Amino acid sequence: MLFHVKMDVAIPLDLDPDLRAETLAREKAYSQDLQRQGKWPHIWRVVGQYSNISVFDVESTDELHELLWNLPLFPYMTIEVTPLCPHPSAV
Amino acid sequence: MLFHVKMDVAIPLDLDPDLRAETLAREKAYSQDLQRQGKWPHIWRVVGQYSNISVFDVESTDELHELLWNLPLFPYMTIEVTPLCPHPSAV
Amino acid sequence: MLFHVKMDVAIPLDLDPDLRAETLAREKAYSQDLQRQGKWPHIWRVVGQYSNISVFDVESTDELHELLWNLPLFPYMTIEVTPLCPHPSAV
Amino acid sequence: MLFHVKMDVAIPLDLDPDLRAETLAREKAYSQDLQRQGKWPHIWRVVGQYSNISVFDVESTDELHELLWNLPLFPYMTIEVTPLCPHPSAV
Amino acid sequence: MLFHVKMDVAIPLDLDPDLRAETLAREKAYSQDLQRQGKWPHIWRVVGQYSNISVFDVESTDELHELLWNLPLFPYMTIEVTPLCPHPSAV
Amino acid sequence: MLFHVKMDVAIPLDLDPDLRAETLAREKAYSQDLQRQGKWPHIWRVVGQYSNISVFDVESTDELHELLWNLPLFPYMTIEVTPLCPHPSAV
Amino acid sequence: MLFHVKMDVAIPLDLDPDLRAETLAREKAYSQDLQRQGKWPHIWRVVGQYSNISVFDVESTDELHELLWNLPLFPYMTIEVTPLCPHPSAV
Amino acid sequence: MLFHVKMDVAIPLDLDPDLRAETLAREKAYSQDLQRQGKWPHIWRVVGQYSNISVFDVESTDELHELLWNLPLFPYMTIEVTPLCPHPSAV
Amino acid sequence: MLFHVKMDVAIPLDLDPDLRAETLAREKAYSQDLQRQGKWPHIWRVVGQYSNISVFDVESTDELHELLWNLPLFPYMTIEVTPLCPHPSAV
Amino acid sequence: MLFHVKMDVAIPLDLDPDLRAETLAREKAYSQDLQRQGKWPHIWRVVGQYSNISVFDVESTDELHELLWNLPLFPYMTIEVTPLCPHPSAV
Repeated sequence: MLFHVKMDVAIPLDLDPDLRAETLAREKAYSQDLQRQGKWPHIWRVVGQYSNISVFDVESTDELHELLWNLPLFPYMTIEVTPLCPHPSAV
Repeated sequence: MLFHVKMDVAIPLDLDPDLRAETLAREKAYSQDLQRQGKWPHIWRVVGQYSNISVFDVESTDELHELLWNLPLFPYMTIEVTPLCPHPSAV
Repeated sequence: MLFHVKMDVAIPLDLDPDLRAETLAREKAYSQDLQRQGKWPHIWRVVGQYSNISVFDVESTDELHELLWNLPLFPYMTIEVTPLCPHPSAV
Repeated sequence: MLFHVKMDVAIPLDLDPDLRAETLAREKAYSQDLQRQGKWPHIWRVVGQYSNISVFDVESTDELHELLWNLPLFPYMTIEVTPLCPHPSAV
Repeated sequence: MLFHVKMDVAIPLDLDPDLRAETLAREKAYSQDLQRQGKWPHIWRVVGQYSNISVFDVESTDELHELLWNLPLFPYMTIEVTPLCPHPSAV
Repeated sequence: MLFHVKMDVAIPLDLDPDLRAETLAREKAYSQDLQRQGKWPHIWRVVGQYSNISVFDVESTDELHELLWNLPLFPYMTIEVTPLCPHPSAV
Repeated sequence: MLFHVKMDVAIPLDLDPDLRAETLAREKAYSQDLQRQGKWPHIWRVVGQYSNISVFDVESTDELHELLWNLPLFPYMTIEVTPLCPHPSAV
Repeated sequence: MLFHVKMDVAIPLDLDPDLRAETLAREKAYSQDLQRQGKWPHIWRVVGQYSNISVFDVESTDELHELLWNLPLFPYMTIEVTPLCPHPSAV
Repeated sequence: MLFHVKMDVAIPLDLDPDLRAETLAREKAYSQDLQRQGKWPHIWRVVGQYSNISVFDVESTDELHELLWNLPLFPYMTIEVTPLCPHPSAV
Repeated sequence: MLFHVKMDVAIPLDLDPDLRAETLAREKAYSQDLQRQGKWPHIWRVVGQYSNISVFDVESTDELHELLWNLPLFPYMTIEVTPLCPHPSAV
């Protein structure tokens, strides 16, 4: 079941640089793990913004919330979720 | 080069039914032809709306405009284009 | 799996009265059938508006879209879907 | 009498961790007490957001304001209230 | 129990003049009847707009919806309802 | 001459508690003095928000600005003013 | 007493040309009469739009509403009124 | 003196085809004449929209309004004008 | 050449009081000097807001930007500029 | 391939003055280098705002993101990108 997810990142400018670096490293590992499991099949950068547009493939809304809530960058993000379904014209 | 495209469809309620059916058939054929060429790699229906979220893969902004402008449903659509690029965490 | 659905109805003022009455009757029957099946567990009127706020309980986003797309009033509605999940403080 | 309430939580990132934990514990107890009394019959998490959508069942707008104003997280919340009433198609 | 109600009127320019006049007369009678009953204690015109700001005093949200839904101008109005309660500084 | 005034209060979370208490006490006294003079005939709390909706009765826009500008909470408020006039259907 | 008034004009494209011309002529005469009386001291065209920004000088909100409500173009306009007062830095 | 101008075109779907074609031809000739005079130095199509983003180079706001008001498509356009000036980092 | 300028002021609550007073004094002197030169012919306070609506009369957009950029309060302001031109109905 | 880019700058008021000066100097050098390479053919100041409107000429969305992400002022900017293409009426 697919969901379109837009994530806008706004890390405070005065965040401790070590904490920042460590959080970004954890975010990357967390994201790549989910990508490898097939739960996060698409992630693109929005040009000119600290944002991504992603597609998640999950069993339930509950699982999706769990995945998003545990993103290391979650406290610094604004997230918008749009449910998707197959398009009748898709080949 | 990838672009995120959101299309919201608003066909007038009083459009001639035959014209409507014929336009929808042309739209489907047009879309499927571009999907098979690899130019329109993703198309999803937004749940509960007469809208789709798509990703296009084109050589240039000029080509993208050409493809969108010639959509049979173009006169009835509101289209929003967001340029994408690879995400540094993508596997 | 629960989804929050807001439906705003805007039937054209000049719609044929018989078609209007017949569509409203079909909408009511359709809705009540889904409520009895347990797929549409909550429906409330928004005070002062021709709108409802509903909760749907479905197996998938695909099923939800199917249910909404086939609403007899769908052509006259603006629908907004928000995915829900259990709240950790719910008793 | 039912009211739809959307609560968006934005706890400052630099809030003292003990105060944060203690406030969250009080919020949970406060919410569960009202749920058990039947005054807060529904509470759902919005997927991907630190927000909930709730339904309150109260005697008056005055009682509703009293309940919301005394939420331990009230100073950190944006709250939007929508009055509801029975829907004519509800079974 | 008080509710703040904003009503914006948009009567179609091509509405039959007799129907228009008759609807406006019914609206005025309906409004004045509710004012005399004490259910619609305040109604003001917004300067420069075909809009009013009103306060209703009702027993329930259900009664309020009933009153608004039966306004003769309801099909031509956009209505926004805000629940009120006594202010702690009111004398 | 009547004006509709919406005031949204946002006192900084880290304001000195004594200054906060003293400012709120001055605000209450200031408001009640104007209410007793008949210049501030209505003040209601918006349910679930640190906001009020008020009606002022003044001689001029100049007097209204003077009254609002000197509110002890003015530095922490967002204020929106809408001019009113008698409604032709008012009894 | 001064009020800032923004008027956006949207005459239907299919309005009868004679009615259109006659209404525009009446609007011009009405406006110039008020300008000569000193009640409408400023009127400017917004560049690139069928809109004006004006300043009215009236005795009351009631008088202002009367003037605006009787504009021949009123049925085709969206009007926004902002109350003004003298600025402390004005020379 | 430069102005940034965004033009969104919305020709009614039921406009007479001959009038439409004739208006578009006049628009093109009008635009190209101004481009050749150096008054309309830039015009770009916005990808996926019936819109353009342009830069005008004029002597005054009065001249700019004259040029825009006389666009053959003016009755079908929404126009937004933003004044520009040289950037201190421009080479 | 006239421009409509809206300035919203938001001085940080914790700005050093001396710096605040000194900046406000410089702003007043700067504004009054431009008013006396005829470059800033109108300045009004918006009722209930720390905002002004002004009209500037300048030779060019470049001159206008220079005047606004050098306002002592510029770093604390949000400014919106709308180009004006003579209205055909102005007397 | 052309992209329209709007950049709004909001440097924190309490940024260290030396860091501020040094960042602005690097931004200017960076911008002028790209201008000289032909990748940033237009940059204009928006009158009355700490914003610019620019046009970039790049090979790909990927290159554009790279250029924008590395702007020394990127952490203090809000950036909006709109893809452009040749206009059929351009001479």
